[in-house]
Amino acid sequence: MKSKQTIERDVQLDMDHRGVAIQQVGISQVKYPLTLSGIERDATAYQSVSAELSLSVSLEQELKGIHMSRLVEDLIEMDGHLSVTGLATLLHRLKEHQQANAASLSLSFDYYLDRTAPVSGRVGKQAYHCELEGQLDEGQLILVQKVEVPVTTLCPCSKEISAYGAHNQRGYVEVRLEHHFAADESLDLSISLEEVIEEVEASASAPLYPILKRTDERYVTMQAYEEPRFVEDMVRNVAVFLRDDARIDRWQVRVTNHESIHQHNAFAVVSGGR
Amino acid sequence: MKSKQTIERDVQLDMDHRGVAIQQVGISQVKYPLTLSGIERDATAYQSVSAELSLSVSLEQELKGIHMSRLVEDLIEMDGHLSVTGLATLLHRLKEHQQANAASLSLSFDYYLDRTAPVSGRVGKQAYHCELEGQLDEGQLILVQKVEVPVTTLCPCSKEISAYGAHNQRGYVEVRLEHHFAADESLDLSISLEEVIEEVEASASAPLYPILKRTDERYVTMQAYEEPRFVEDMVRNVAVFLRDDARIDRWQVRVTNHESIHQHNAFAVVSGGR
Amino acid sequence: MKSKQTIERDVQLDMDHRGVAIQQVGISQVKYPLTLSGIERDATAYQSVSAELSLSVSLEQELKGIHMSRLVEDLIEMDGHLSVTGLATLLHRLKEHQQANAASLSLSFDYYLDRTAPVSGRVGKQAYHCELEGQLDEGQLILVQKVEVPVTTLCPCSKEISAYGAHNQRGYVEVRLEHHFAADESLDLSISLEEVIEEVEASASAPLYPILKRTDERYVTMQAYEEPRFVEDMVRNVAVFLRDDARIDRWQVRVTNHESIHQHNAFAVVSGGR
Amino acid sequence: MKSKQTIERDVQLDMDHRGVAIQQVGISQVKYPLTLSGIERDATAYQSVSAELSLSVSLEQELKGIHMSRLVEDLIEMDGHLSVTGLATLLHRLKEHQQANAASLSLSFDYYLDRTAPVSGRVGKQAYHCELEGQLDEGQLILVQKVEVPVTTLCPCSKEISAYGAHNQRGYVEVRLEHHFAADESLDLSISLEEVIEEVEASASAPLYPILKRTDERYVTMQAYEEPRFVEDMVRNVAVFLRDDARIDRWQVRVTNHESIHQHNAFAVVSGGR
Repeated sequence: MKSKQTIERDVQLDMDHRGVAIQQVGISQVKYPLTLSGIERDATAYQSVSAELSLSVSLEQELKGIHMSRLVEDLIEMDGHLSVTGLATLLHRLKEHQQANAASLSLSFDYYLDRTAPVSGRVGKQAYHCELEGQLDEGQLILVQKVEVPVTTLCPCSKEISAYGAHNQRGYVEVRLEHHFAADESLDLSISLEEVIEEVEASASAPLYPILKRTDERYVTMQAYEEPRFVEDMVRNVAVFLRDDARIDRWQVRVTNHESIHQHNAFAVVSGGR
Repeated sequence: MKSKQTIERDVQLDMDHRGVAIQQVGISQVKYPLTLSGIERDATAYQSVSAELSLSVSLEQELKGIHMSRLVEDLIEMDGHLSVTGLATLLHRLKEHQQANAASLSLSFDYYLDRTAPVSGRVGKQAYHCELEGQLDEGQLILVQKVEVPVTTLCPCSKEISAYGAHNQRGYVEVRLEHHFAADESLDLSISLEEVIEEVEASASAPLYPILKRTDERYVTMQAYEEPRFVEDMVRNVAVFLRDDARIDRWQVRVTNHESIHQHNAFAVVSGGR
Repeated sequence: MKSKQTIERDVQLDMDHRGVAIQQVGISQVKYPLTLSGIERDATAYQSVSAELSLSVSLEQELKGIHMSRLVEDLIEMDGHLSVTGLATLLHRLKEHQQANAASLSLSFDYYLDRTAPVSGRVGKQAYHCELEGQLDEGQLILVQKVEVPVTTLCPCSKEISAYGAHNQRGYVEVRLEHHFAADESLDLSISLEEVIEEVEASASAPLYPILKRTDERYVTMQAYEEPRFVEDMVRNVAVFLRDDARIDRWQVRVTNHESIHQHNAFAVVSGGR
Repeated sequence: MKSKQTIERDVQLDMDHRGVAIQQVGISQVKYPLTLSGIERDATAYQSVSAELSLSVSLEQELKGIHMSRLVEDLIEMDGHLSVTGLATLLHRLKEHQQANAASLSLSFDYYLDRTAPVSGRVGKQAYHCELEGQLDEGQLILVQKVEVPVTTLCPCSKEISAYGAHNQRGYVEVRLEHHFAADESLDLSISLEEVIEEVEASASAPLYPILKRTDERYVTMQAYEEPRFVEDMVRNVAVFLRDDARIDRWQVRVTNHESIHQHNAFAVVSGGR
């Protein structure tokens, strides 16, 4: 049986001689329940989410390894609450407790918003898959907001060339917004994912709704027919909304249409920023 | 260092005293390349597939464990070729080599068939996700054929209540056919998955095609509009085709529509047989 | 433009002549936020979960279709709360509002429980993937509880034949419990998934923990080495716990080991009950 | 009914006024059977694979849309054969046929290699998930090779602090290699994914094998125990192999360990190049 002294020897404290610095090392697919704010226009609004997280730090070339359990403890110490400010706090703790030069985190979760049917007024909840990412190093903090907005898209070509009907399908619009801050700058995310979701839904052939009565179904069927959108149109509509928005540093839009006439999808990507 | 004798002692040969017989024990998520026949109308036609397999046997309550590596060897000894008869042969080998009362296997793979666009005649290949299963015990062999056929479905209600347009989407039709044979009976699968695929595609609002030129797109758009199908209609159309077919012992159809106006899906299931 | 009268004609009310009754028709992949109780030993304890649901009813052969939106409304009217009794209430509503002979529902979600490291006493939350199902027809209500418990499994053969070391890996234990009630019987689920989880974790080579300090890592490493389990042992241990439990009508256990020495998995299934 | 002239009007030829250039537009999740060479050390060796592809081009801001079906036809015209040279040919065709400034493609597939058990010499096939990507613009062609290699990793800390045993698990090593060529340069991929796979397997605690007899299981169990690797070690070992290889322009390694003592994973990422 090894002596107690052996338990003290921490192999992570050995030196490494391969001369390889590691950009990111940590834990992933960590599931944790959180109360999250900062997703809605109302910055104080919050929701319970089941999040999947990734927490990591950089590692200098001489050091053999990090302390993985400390990363989990930093998460636990957030007491289950996260806001934009909280993300920055967590990044600082990850970095300091590992004495690292940089720290990163990401979390993905479903967030629910009420959606109201256009004619009947029936209200139901719709899930939006969101992600938040953060990267902190000596000089800078980068915060990333991502959301996937499902919509209805109807094909202009199909409508144009056919005597009647037009193929339509679910489309998925992924928006990624990047915000850069100086490491000691006060964080201010003045654009919410709720606002992005509304802009995307307004630019589609039609939004999706959790509940539709017959009067609503008629409404969205006809709206989509009146508002055909190629995948090129969808991605451009959202790009126009994002490109001149001073609240955003860098952005990317990816639209994927699950074409109803093919087994494969159509997609388009646009990115920009300063 | 343990002596060579220890290597000989096989813990799987110990006796178990918990009094629990095991229905299935084996290996799963085994990936193997195979040449497969028996999927098309032409029983001799074959294709190279990348299959994911599950191989298992039953285990009597007194026995501690099976010999997992023997299962892999039985698969390797098939020399990469499988047909309906080959499936039965493999089941018999799995059962005999483990001295078990029963053996099971399943394999899932993509199988490609040519599909010809309806107006332009352009030909491309379309993938169909298929599964084959087998169960052998002392008295009986059950063979199962499964295929998932993607189609276009257009909503009758949406069409009826709207002045123009109709929501449509990709639908997925899963058909499961079960065939019972006496353990020593000669196997004869006289219904092919290719035939099932054709029947399903013929009963949808429109089939999917890998390649569509403008003339084809007009054709399928209008065909779907002329042939609206609720998920209830899709599942009934296929059931009508299967229920009186003497070549089938038990069957099930499940249709899932990826509704273009909702984030959720609509589905229906019908099963029958003797 | 079609007249308002057309909006009134409901194609779902037409008659169907194909003579095919449908076992299940409804909606799936519905995401909804719920407050759920009945998972823990304390029947009043609840948690916010993000659930994926399936809601369906049967359809008689003469009827053309159901009213899909009514299913969504039945869910919304639960006001986001579900307990065992609530599941039965929802089933009755689905059935009555569609005037159907039978109704089914399922929901899957992650549920978090505190887990305490064995030496350091550090507490963290661990996610367990759970499912609840219900089926109601004229005479009977069947309730199903399912949970997937991740554990550590260490191979007895590897340990036996090697001078040192033993391969080990994550294993996943899926337990399915079925409870039968007369349609008007008062529901009493006296076995909780929390209890099942504890039994499974106690029967593994070692449980998993969200946070482990060095003293804990030593503890679980050695515990696993002292408690080797074939996949056959894991499944039998759980079967012994379930088979004589009078609170369960039918049960099934499936264990899947993500073998650290292979790319494929090992698995075993046992089922039983009255 | 619209006249034939309408069929002629191609909405894709309209002009767009939003001033948004699109970086990538095309089709994704296209499944196609291919015969692929260039994966093994022997550049002439080929294998039938079922590939999932993405094909796209850039689109100038004034143009409304691309011709999606032409992308599919370009793929079909490859007659199911692809090599490194073939990838470049396909990129040139995609670009020319859409009169675009740039073209991209990616394909992912499983590729099988024989693996021989270390003592018994038993041979079986093991699947490696691979990806190839290409990007062509006016001046340059970038080719990317990616492979995910599953291995066994055993924890040094667990081994060090425990009297006996050591936790181990499956690890997944993803290697990404980027090669830059001038657009008219002759392509020469002198490093094969087979070579990368061998280097990765040689640097792990132990490789995985499709088939292991008892003598092999003893061998790999003990080898892993003698060769503990933190995720930091795994990623550094591979980085050392890649960083001085003149045949590679840019590279990235990501290792993910499916920790047998946790539900979450450990990971590390290193990248480099010129």
